[in-house]
Amino acid sequence: MMSRSEFRKQQQATAALFKKAGIVITKKEAATIDAADFGLGEFAQTGLGVLVYVNTARCCAKELSLLPRQTCPEHRHPNVAGEPGKEETFRCRWGRVHLYVPGKKTARPHGKAPKGREDHYTVWHEVVLNPGDQYTLQPNTLHWFQGGPRGAVVSEFSTRSRDEADIFTDPEIARVTKIR
Amino acid sequence: MMSRSEFRKQQQATAALFKKAGIVITKKEAATIDAADFGLGEFAQTGLGVLVYVNTARCCAKELSLLPRQTCPEHRHPNVAGEPGKEETFRCRWGRVHLYVPGKKTARPHGKAPKGREDHYTVWHEVVLNPGDQYTLQPNTLHWFQGGPRGAVVSEFSTRSRDEADIFTDPEIARVTKIR
Repeated sequence: MMSRSEFRKQQQATAALFKKAGIVITKKEAATIDAADFGLGEFAQTGLGVLVYVNTARCCAKELSLLPRQTCPEHRHPNVAGEPGKEETFRCRWGRVHLYVPGKKTARPHGKAPKGREDHYTVWHEVVLNPGDQYTLQPNTLHWFQGGPRGAVVSEFSTRSRDEADIFTDPEIARVTKIR
Repeated sequence: MMSRSEFRKQQQATAALFKKAGIVITKKEAATIDAADFGLGEFAQTGLGVLVYVNTARCCAKELSLLPRQTCPEHRHPNVAGEPGKEETFRCRWGRVHLYVPGKKTARPHGKAPKGREDHYTVWHEVVLNPGDQYTLQPNTLHWFQGGPRGAVVSEFSTRSRDEADIFTDPEIARVTKIR
């Protein structure tokens, strides 16, 4: 849960990162940015800035922001109502993002699980995305990602997004942002 | 048909427009840019720079460039193999783009049909997209678009792209770029 003023502050921080990345958004769009704290109330540690450009029954595009070392927690996108789960491509636009997926554990990963939440980070194969780099995730694949030392701006191209259906490894997480 | 050296030159012009827009692409990606002349051999008049980021069975994202007053010619995306046609969102990132769709004819449109090809431009409802503006097209909708005075960079978010299935109003057009 976040206070209204904290939520507004984090919306502005996301808009500022988009600006740094050279991404133009409208004033109307800025007001729709979600500063997602995943219900943990530790936004700087576990959180994500999200601007949804378009989300139809068939496809979706978003712009994402991460503060320095901020983590989008481990989750997967299951099949919903007989449809295959969300397929998504992350493309780094600015800064650096460390993405973790199933596979051989990276020996010395750049990222660190958020403090006190280490048990809920189970995939450790690291993919480093610098500006211009991208990675496509198949449906139902566990993943999490973390901003580099300056944070990151990431474009997401995907099939229909149903955030409420996402399955997080950490049972304390609730995807839908609640404002106090 | 385009000569190899002309094609390379136009790939570089597209890469330069992406750079102006603050969009970072890799060297490997730059080499995959399509400078599409739609088979007319009049690239500066009828043409489009295209970088495909991802195109799977389910979704697609591209970066497009238009030179000043350059036109992507009128076409639509039909249903293919029992699947609904391509649904696409154009988002202007840099410059300005004038998009034409079915509806009430705009009295004094900014755009002009390419010289000698006027008969093949039949939809004249104008949508002006400045940076941060976007528009979503339903499948099978006739549309064409033209760069503004400085050209444009446009992100396209869509369902699966099957360029070879596109239906153009101008019967002389062939979508797949041929290099001499």
